Amino acid sequence: MVNIIIITHGDFGAYITEAAENIAGPQNEGVKNISVSPKMSLQAVNELVEKAAKEYYSGDGLIFLTDMPGGTPMNVALPLAARLEKAAVICGLNLSMAVSAFANRKSLAFEPLVEKIQNDARRAICEVKGLLKKQ
Amino acid sequence: MVNIIIITHGDFGAYITEAAENIAGPQNEGVKNISVSPKMSLQAVNELVEKAAKEYYSGDGLIFLTDMPGGTPMNVALPLAARLEKAAVICGLNLSMAVSAFANRKSLAFEPLVEKIQNDARRAICEVKGLLKKQ
Repeated sequence: MVNIIIITHGDFGAYITEAAENIAGPQNEGVKNISVSPKMSLQAVNELVEKAAKEYYSGDGLIFLTDMPGGTPMNVALPLAARLEKAAVICGLNLSMAVSAFANRKSLAFEPLVEKIQNDARRAICEVKGLLKKQ
Repeated sequence: MVNIIIITHGDFGAYITEAAENIAGPQNEGVKNISVSPKMSLQAVNELVEKAAKEYYSGDGLIFLTDMPGGTPMNVALPLAARLEKAAVICGLNLSMAVSAFANRKSLAFEPLVEKIQNDARRAICEVKGLLKKQ
């Protein structure tokens, strides 16, 4: 089973996790949320994420889901993931991304899971009134 | 100025708004958050969204940002948007989508804004450790 660490600016990762668990079912183990507040020092964030990475890294792999490319959550996760063989950092967290990660982390191996999570998250982004008109 | 109504399962839209305002600047007017709880009846959600749509629709246009395609937030927004000339429903809300909407809703017209928000949200979805390796 691939473990997931969700890191976001503020608390929205925890609320996305809650909404995703309502859809994909409760994730009793292997999922960790970390909220980054503007008041925390970079060192404090680093320590928190490093501790979680040690605890959650397993032979099956570890995926960090973070919010914006170039933001602190990504910047802190990336050097840690780079040192771990089976670790990835996916940016652009949305609800479909979390649902995909939760629903597939038990059945898919690390690399196909990394692909599926990105595809499901991207596919969710669409303007649906325009799609109606095209039908 | 294009107005924005964010509708999500639970409260994460409000937290994404908070994080996006920390990046793109405070949105003092023209942005509304609606949280959909599993305990609310569909009728109650409908009434809430319809009231907000009346209040926030302007000649410049209105964009609903919602979480998952096919979820209640999208399902409630879509028939309302279909009746309004300049209204769109974009699914797949992530932080980059909210930042893009907030940063560009004053300078861009409705249609280019709808495109830009989707492009910025999609571009944010990437696995960054793999990108490092390719360099």
